[in-house]
Amino acid sequence: MPFEIKDVDLAGRIGLLRTRHGTIETPAFFPVIDIARQDLPPNEIKKAGFSQVITNAYLTLKRYGDQAIEKGIHGLLGFNGIVMTDSGAYQILEYGKIDLDPIEIIEYQKAIGTDIGVILDIPTGDVDRSRAEYSVNETLRRAREAQEHLDDNTLWVLPIQGGRYLDLVEKSARESRSLTGYSIYGIGSPTVYLEKYRYDIVISQVIHAKKYIMWGRPVHLFGAGHPLIIPLAVALGVDMFDSASYILYARTDRYMTDYGVEDINQLDYFPCNCPVCTRYTPQELREMPKPERTRLLALHNLYTIKRAIDRTKHAIRSGLLWELVEETARKHPNAFSAFARIRTVSSSMLEESTPRTKGIVRGIRLYSIESTFNPRVARWRQMTAQYTPSYHFSKLIIEPLGDKCKAPDDPDSYILFMKPLLGVVPWELCGLYPSMQSHAPAQPPLDAALDLAREVAIFVRKVYGRGARSIVLRIPEDPWWRLVASHVKDLVDVDVEYVL
Amino acid sequence: MPFEIKDVDLAGRIGLLRTRHGTIETPAFFPVIDIARQDLPPNEIKKAGFSQVITNAYLTLKRYGDQAIEKGIHGLLGFNGIVMTDSGAYQILEYGKIDLDPIEIIEYQKAIGTDIGVILDIPTGDVDRSRAEYSVNETLRRAREAQEHLDDNTLWVLPIQGGRYLDLVEKSARESRSLTGYSIYGIGSPTVYLEKYRYDIVISQVIHAKKYIMWGRPVHLFGAGHPLIIPLAVALGVDMFDSASYILYARTDRYMTDYGVEDINQLDYFPCNCPVCTRYTPQELREMPKPERTRLLALHNLYTIKRAIDRTKHAIRSGLLWELVEETARKHPNAFSAFARIRTVSSSMLEESTPRTKGIVRGIRLYSIESTFNPRVARWRQMTAQYTPSYHFSKLIIEPLGDKCKAPDDPDSYILFMKPLLGVVPWELCGLYPSMQSHAPAQPPLDAALDLAREVAIFVRKVYGRGARSIVLRIPEDPWWRLVASHVKDLVDVDVEYVL
Repeated sequence: MPFEIKDVDLAGRIGLLRTRHGTIETPAFFPVIDIARQDLPPNEIKKAGFSQVITNAYLTLKRYGDQAIEKGIHGLLGFNGIVMTDSGAYQILEYGKIDLDPIEIIEYQKAIGTDIGVILDIPTGDVDRSRAEYSVNETLRRAREAQEHLDDNTLWVLPIQGGRYLDLVEKSARESRSLTGYSIYGIGSPTVYLEKYRYDIVISQVIHAKKYIMWGRPVHLFGAGHPLIIPLAVALGVDMFDSASYILYARTDRYMTDYGVEDINQLDYFPCNCPVCTRYTPQELREMPKPERTRLLALHNLYTIKRAIDRTKHAIRSGLLWELVEETARKHPNAFSAFARIRTVSSSMLEESTPRTKGIVRGIRLYSIESTFNPRVARWRQMTAQYTPSYHFSKLIIEPLGDKCKAPDDPDSYILFMKPLLGVVPWELCGLYPSMQSHAPAQPPLDAALDLAREVAIFVRKVYGRGARSIVLRIPEDPWWRLVASHVKDLVDVDVEYVL
Repeated sequence: MPFEIKDVDLAGRIGLLRTRHGTIETPAFFPVIDIARQDLPPNEIKKAGFSQVITNAYLTLKRYGDQAIEKGIHGLLGFNGIVMTDSGAYQILEYGKIDLDPIEIIEYQKAIGTDIGVILDIPTGDVDRSRAEYSVNETLRRAREAQEHLDDNTLWVLPIQGGRYLDLVEKSARESRSLTGYSIYGIGSPTVYLEKYRYDIVISQVIHAKKYIMWGRPVHLFGAGHPLIIPLAVALGVDMFDSASYILYARTDRYMTDYGVEDINQLDYFPCNCPVCTRYTPQELREMPKPERTRLLALHNLYTIKRAIDRTKHAIRSGLLWELVEETARKHPNAFSAFARIRTVSSSMLEESTPRTKGIVRGIRLYSIESTFNPRVARWRQMTAQYTPSYHFSKLIIEPLGDKCKAPDDPDSYILFMKPLLGVVPWELCGLYPSMQSHAPAQPPLDAALDLAREVAIFVRKVYGRGARSIVLRIPEDPWWRLVASHVKDLVDVDVEYVL
């Protein structure tokens, strides 16, 4: 198998993808190289931290034909790394039909020595349902037809289509499973939605495609590469990205940030510390000759993407990918909408693959109700909801969890601890991950009070039948805890005691 | 006046602080230089983007005495920029009493040619109330006594004390106003809370001090410099920061990030793209000799602080400081708690100084109920709550605001538009900032439905007396809008129509 998974958090993973020119660590971004025009030389792309690029086999064929076969695609580009080629499908999306035989372009990709090749699929685009159905069926037909032409030296990508028709995306993914010879699944044609920043639609495509893609297979998201989409897509199990935006933006003076795109002409400060932004001021960049400015802006844009990839990898390693997703959702309203979609799948798709703890155990970070969708919180709540105390007791004391665990002073008592946004912690379970390894704000939001009261009520109702004669909620005299008490009293019968 | 304010957003500002060695643009960070040991040479600090540093006059006196007077502090440090000196107050906090006369250290700071000097105050620390009162009163007494020794060549800082006793902080700030000769107010001794990451307490100190500090005066926050606190403190009107953490962290292999601190020994990836992190891998850094690793980590830490400063400045320029504060609140639970404090002052302290629009008008970014505390949203709601339609009508149509404004088709009708998290938009006001210049998520959170319903109800109640015979809520058949309708019907009497 060319793909090996090394670490996992949520549905995201760090993996190794083995090609004949070397191994790529995923999640990985493939900068698109324009075969005809390289404003940023490929060796500078490599120096910026990208050992893999993608270029277009169809345009290479048109422009260089046999010359590319003689030199090989690596030689033609002068790039000593991993080269992926796209097939011309994007040109179909842009210009309608193109004059290209699906088998011819497979053979051409083999002949130029591409490391990762793509069959000539039919991208769905933003079309009506019948055209979307056609693109799914025709892509599948071509994928089947292509099978006998696929070689073992190249990793072949099978694109999944369907556009905004999520049942068609599912169908496409489901039927793709039976096709052999492909190593990578590509989620096709999000470009039209990425251009409109409709990250919620792209994320839905990923969710529905991933349902039917086998867990161990690498997944490529075509045309995506903005720092806003990278952590969200990785959290759902996307491993590879490609985009030309770093250079297309640069040509039109657009400057990528992790929260959107800026116009270089409207910047007084660079909100970045990459080698370009620490060396030049916006004014200096504006005064440069256009080719130099384009080169430097492209480099900045690549560094910005690199940072997003590395931060995402680091979040996977430290088990804080959910927290990174929550943070990303506050970088742009459209990322927030995409996050809303991710929340709907958290319990099933994300929870299964979230390791209970990691090599390095970090505390969970809790902010607001959104944080209760963190699979580690959801799992804790499931566990405590099913947990029954191991002995009978006459008094139940319910109190906020402090810095330390403690047992009841009185052997006839039981202590249930409360922690905002996490839930309840039966005293015997105190210390168990993540009861102490979770960090809630000292000032939790108001709706977290009702949320906590509900968790308390679930536990108290279990205890009613077990003979506890007295149930006491012991809380500080503080507005937030008073609100918790008032909600608890609405739900179950407890006495409230205020302590200093 | 040595301080000039160039731009404002929330209570934060971009300013120019003029010293005898040149002008500093604020918000500015002053890296602390240890007079005895420079692991990172001052010229490298300057290359990393800091034209100003701070060092300790007391330690300089102890170690170099008259030598510093001969060479001048700039010469002694070999730093061709702006030098601020602290007075030894931090040493009082750390070691209790020190052997130093308050007037002597003022004269010494003048003699060594410091650009920005600090009197020898008594930092409050984490002490009981009577000791806190002593530190406030004694600092004020010393500040009064110092007055006749202050010169015009130096900018003098008057520290405000009080610690966690916010009434004492207010008293300290209030009484400081009457003292002349000081150009800058310093908010003293947050260090003890910064070390515990209690940003909420530090932010409270700032809020209470700023109440009594004159708007036009620059404010320095002693000992603070982490990217988590910078945007929050600037939003409340802090202009200057200093900290030694960049180097103290580096000496113990700690790596600063914009969401916390990492141990270099636990990093597989650098979640950063600064010149250090793009050039080396964590493994390479670990294998370096200690002095070289310390130097590079210190440099990385400085680049990280620089990025936080520049991003904050850029947010002020583009009128998106509130959005940056919301984002920062999702980078650490303690930043979230500090944000909760900021929300409580948004309407008064922040709203007054938030310009209605800026040179470059950016859309407001809306995420969740927290976003309704954005002063631009609060102001819009105040305005619409007071707004009365200019004519009588028989039918009121209430519908979601789309991409375009439109007038009613029927001259007897009135249209009230709704926008999640912003509120209502009477049709004559449609287009007025920020009705169209605001970006709400396509999938707003559930509690935003009740919030919007309340805004609708306020308007509808005003209309009851004005003869409208029919009030129709016209919404898409969609779960979120159905929830809005159900809340509206709980509050006022409307008919609901579903449209495609």
